[in-house]
Amino acid sequence: MIEAALFGAGRIGKIHAANLARQVGVRLKYVVDVHVESARELAQLHGASVVGVDQALEDPSIKAVVVASSTDTHADLIVRAAAAGKAIFCEKPVDLTLARAQAAADAVKQAGVLCMIGFQRRYDPTFAAVKARLQAGEIGVPEMLTVTSRDPGAPPVSYIKVSGGIFKDMLIHDFDIFRWILDDEAASVYATGSCLTDPAIGEAGDLDATAVTIRTRKGRLCQINTTRRAAYGYDQRFEILGSTGMLQAGNHRPTEVTAYSAHSVSADKPEHFFLERYRAAYAAEMAHFFDALVNGTPLRTTVHDGLKALELAEAATTSWREQRIVHL
Amino acid sequence: MIEAALFGAGRIGKIHAANLARQVGVRLKYVVDVHVESARELAQLHGASVVGVDQALEDPSIKAVVVASSTDTHADLIVRAAAAGKAIFCEKPVDLTLARAQAAADAVKQAGVLCMIGFQRRYDPTFAAVKARLQAGEIGVPEMLTVTSRDPGAPPVSYIKVSGGIFKDMLIHDFDIFRWILDDEAASVYATGSCLTDPAIGEAGDLDATAVTIRTRKGRLCQINTTRRAAYGYDQRFEILGSTGMLQAGNHRPTEVTAYSAHSVSADKPEHFFLERYRAAYAAEMAHFFDALVNGTPLRTTVHDGLKALELAEAATTSWREQRIVHL
Amino acid sequence: MIEAALFGAGRIGKIHAANLARQVGVRLKYVVDVHVESARELAQLHGASVVGVDQALEDPSIKAVVVASSTDTHADLIVRAAAAGKAIFCEKPVDLTLARAQAAADAVKQAGVLCMIGFQRRYDPTFAAVKARLQAGEIGVPEMLTVTSRDPGAPPVSYIKVSGGIFKDMLIHDFDIFRWILDDEAASVYATGSCLTDPAIGEAGDLDATAVTIRTRKGRLCQINTTRRAAYGYDQRFEILGSTGMLQAGNHRPTEVTAYSAHSVSADKPEHFFLERYRAAYAAEMAHFFDALVNGTPLRTTVHDGLKALELAEAATTSWREQRIVHL
Amino acid sequence: MIEAALFGAGRIGKIHAANLARQVGVRLKYVVDVHVESARELAQLHGASVVGVDQALEDPSIKAVVVASSTDTHADLIVRAAAAGKAIFCEKPVDLTLARAQAAADAVKQAGVLCMIGFQRRYDPTFAAVKARLQAGEIGVPEMLTVTSRDPGAPPVSYIKVSGGIFKDMLIHDFDIFRWILDDEAASVYATGSCLTDPAIGEAGDLDATAVTIRTRKGRLCQINTTRRAAYGYDQRFEILGSTGMLQAGNHRPTEVTAYSAHSVSADKPEHFFLERYRAAYAAEMAHFFDALVNGTPLRTTVHDGLKALELAEAATTSWREQRIVHL
Repeated sequence: MIEAALFGAGRIGKIHAANLARQVGVRLKYVVDVHVESARELAQLHGASVVGVDQALEDPSIKAVVVASSTDTHADLIVRAAAAGKAIFCEKPVDLTLARAQAAADAVKQAGVLCMIGFQRRYDPTFAAVKARLQAGEIGVPEMLTVTSRDPGAPPVSYIKVSGGIFKDMLIHDFDIFRWILDDEAASVYATGSCLTDPAIGEAGDLDATAVTIRTRKGRLCQINTTRRAAYGYDQRFEILGSTGMLQAGNHRPTEVTAYSAHSVSADKPEHFFLERYRAAYAAEMAHFFDALVNGTPLRTTVHDGLKALELAEAATTSWREQRIVHL
Repeated sequence: MIEAALFGAGRIGKIHAANLARQVGVRLKYVVDVHVESARELAQLHGASVVGVDQALEDPSIKAVVVASSTDTHADLIVRAAAAGKAIFCEKPVDLTLARAQAAADAVKQAGVLCMIGFQRRYDPTFAAVKARLQAGEIGVPEMLTVTSRDPGAPPVSYIKVSGGIFKDMLIHDFDIFRWILDDEAASVYATGSCLTDPAIGEAGDLDATAVTIRTRKGRLCQINTTRRAAYGYDQRFEILGSTGMLQAGNHRPTEVTAYSAHSVSADKPEHFFLERYRAAYAAEMAHFFDALVNGTPLRTTVHDGLKALELAEAATTSWREQRIVHL
Repeated sequence: MIEAALFGAGRIGKIHAANLARQVGVRLKYVVDVHVESARELAQLHGASVVGVDQALEDPSIKAVVVASSTDTHADLIVRAAAAGKAIFCEKPVDLTLARAQAAADAVKQAGVLCMIGFQRRYDPTFAAVKARLQAGEIGVPEMLTVTSRDPGAPPVSYIKVSGGIFKDMLIHDFDIFRWILDDEAASVYATGSCLTDPAIGEAGDLDATAVTIRTRKGRLCQINTTRRAAYGYDQRFEILGSTGMLQAGNHRPTEVTAYSAHSVSADKPEHFFLERYRAAYAAEMAHFFDALVNGTPLRTTVHDGLKALELAEAATTSWREQRIVHL
Repeated sequence: MIEAALFGAGRIGKIHAANLARQVGVRLKYVVDVHVESARELAQLHGASVVGVDQALEDPSIKAVVVASSTDTHADLIVRAAAAGKAIFCEKPVDLTLARAQAAADAVKQAGVLCMIGFQRRYDPTFAAVKARLQAGEIGVPEMLTVTSRDPGAPPVSYIKVSGGIFKDMLIHDFDIFRWILDDEAASVYATGSCLTDPAIGEAGDLDATAVTIRTRKGRLCQINTTRRAAYGYDQRFEILGSTGMLQAGNHRPTEVTAYSAHSVSADKPEHFFLERYRAAYAAEMAHFFDALVNGTPLRTTVHDGLKALELAEAATTSWREQRIVHL
């Protein structure tokens, strides 16, 4: 039986706790959260105890930690958990600054522990199937990637102010998808954007709509378009053109009902938001983490991936702020 | 230059005249219609003259006639045109009674002339592609056919009263599709139906919704569902299950616009009605007729096909009226 | 805490056990199966004990039983569990004979216990959404239902021989869908069919392809087409035409990948078979059962529904065997 | 009767001649082409005469000219036809250099003649429907446009060498779509690209894959991706995100057949290439030209639009060549 500790009992912490509970041979022993009431409630649901960070990390029976606390705690918890020899599952992003993220990566390397970053999209059935078919050579050599990544609505401006900006908060996922799907690194990044949905976002120094272009070392092209507010819901698609064909990853829908009226033929909107859209992905990534821990399966999303995505987010931010093409 | 005469200057006559005008090496010489004003207008548009039936049939320069007049004139015109040695294109149905239709078929046989029946659906790009792929063996041996055939709205009851009933007026096309796609003949027919949209249709002794089942000599199964009123428009689909797969013929739409709103994702309704849906089919069938006339290409829809479809319409009518399975 | 006993530890029993385990406040106490090894394995997975039928029914702490054993045991277990005052969840069909099914229904009525039949399709997200939208009046008055229900491959002939025939084994679900969606009862049933995929099925006195037509008391029409072998997989669709529109329930797919090749644009086949297609439905029906038990929510699928579906299966069998329309 | 002259009897000239012939009250009088054999053949088909440029422009009975000759002749023919007082329909682009295109626009302005540029995509049923729905306010204020524009295969390198480069030859259409759909002008342009399909294209100083980003004066964003070689065919899509929804213009397909096999569910590839895809658009634009000439309907695609699209193509070329963001 592997015993685990969870840091963070918020929305995403609850998802991870439930998925962790479904792993055969794994038990949630501790829940840690500064908001004790939340910790207590979640711990009770899963027969776990509420403890502090120190106690969780000092308990030698704890083999794995799941970091789902606020972003500013990630790097520090990684460093400490690594030092304690725990296997680490950490929500994205590693940190909002490259220096701290690098420090976390170094600590992981030095300790030689497992550290998986929660880029859950790589575990989505549709996205993973595209990757597998691409690797199987179905469309030849990849040439061009188009990513559409749109939220149904903007978070509160208070959140945006501490989010690190849209490139680190929202596009971090898309940058990871880019690296994973094209299997190549960026040579140049160009980013532009606008504030079109809420002036308060602009006043907070951020964008709510962006257009990013990446050219890779091998000359492959990637365009990413994002917005904080797609009136029709959560839009998560990409398409990859290869030398002999194309693969598209489409949205998922709640049901397969089609309605014919006097006006049109209509289907469901996409799944509401990330909790619904990536439900299967969250389950699969947790299974993957414990599979890596128990069976030594290679990790699909490492702390290195976390660093590289952050690097791209930094480059995009610079490109937008300084209105120039950033070469990497 | 092949010179042709057109009988009937109504809605479908105009379509045929325009398609005839597009055939290279063919010229519309005469337009015949009891409604002289319509004849004159259509003749003028195409540089043709208005004459009577006799004059049209007695002119030896006329090699081909297109019969698009009212149903009750079809059989007689076929008999007379055959006797005059003309190649005949005749709108469906051959007649509302089997005896008269048989007489027309006999006249054609005796005269040895070409006689094509306007089952335009066989010339529709989508339907024809299904047939071609079926013949190429793409889904193995055909086993089961489902036909959905729905009009957007019922015609006036005055029309329904002289239409021969829904099986001869509307399902005649579906019976032809059945024979063509399954490449087999009916062993038994079961038909039922209801009057659900307008009581006046029932009072006129007809149905507005039907469900027909045909079992073929080879044991293949066919189900046809029809209605006079589909609120969402003209619905023309079928699907054929084979031993190794299935082929579906779907509706055509005016545009390929997809709209995402806060409520749903929607596309266009199907093409409005038969003139729009089968525009390409009407053009292709006229080209086919003159191709047969000039180059001897075998006819795809003969007077025999007209007879067999009528036979099925009769059997279905009997099955419904007498509430029994009709064996053929 | 509600304690429950499970009869049957086979394929479907395992599904029910897992879903039962997810209900908050419910505990699987006993697993009963003549095949002790299976019972032991499943019991161990869920911390339950292996006992015999008597012990399970005599334990007053058992409030609910789940009957997932072989069909021939259903009616008897219902009768005994009802007599013991247990709430009953029973897999379809109630029995293969109307008399025994009626006896079970009578026992339930007399005991005044809850008895839910596992017509899981009514709990499928897509099917349930169609029903809800229909009830909300979205397409007006229902007029015509078309059901396509096809298995990916036939079971062994040994199974077919004891299955009660295709109408009771396979179409029982479709008959239930018919009653539920049209909210009406059959006035007449016509069924025909063929043996097209495997002569051994015909030799066993059964069909592998059927075409059924039902006309309801209100004159509504329903056509069902089924086959034991759809080469492209498990095909579970229906469409309901109403006076002001149409609703279609489409297949579910494993992923939303679309592939563009030099030959075609392709998507996934439907979910492989019923365990995949109805995964969500199986979970929802078990939640519904305990919701009814705990909160008194009205059952969506009662033993009466089981009886009525069986009645239709009998009528269809008679129609096919005696080649006549059966009036109910 | 309006008499017209056609310059250019090649592939696109033939399309225009056939569409011109379908206009009621319009007659093709002259065909002009340096390749006399082609001119003769096309003239004969439409009952026209073969003449030289001078004779065509000097004939006062000629009210309209259609310029479908090689790109390097466009500007000169526009200038001369304008001076002769003819209404002008000219294929895109106006010219490969801004100076000459401007001179042509000036000549048109000075002469006060009608001059329509053949951006046929604006007349495509799907694209035009998106524009109309956008204008009707269906998705609120436009915010973001994504254009996918891919050819099925590259033209010969000999053609590419005189084409003006991919931005002027291929993206000229997409730049026009951008201006038309967003109803705004570019503030900045960023273009990058690669040579991925054929090194000979790169050696000729051109690209075969591009990624362009435009930010408009109102802050709207546009991303265009193109390639000379999409293995699956001619891909012509765009999607426009608005403040209250999204509209997508999808590909057209030859038929609506869907095939279910043991491996996948597949549909037709998009229409083969521009002649097939834009067949309806070519017909509609010619009707629009004569409608403007006869009835004074405002032109949808003027010589000014031709100039502005060329300006964007120049800016994109510069952005790519000099690896910088171009501000307009």
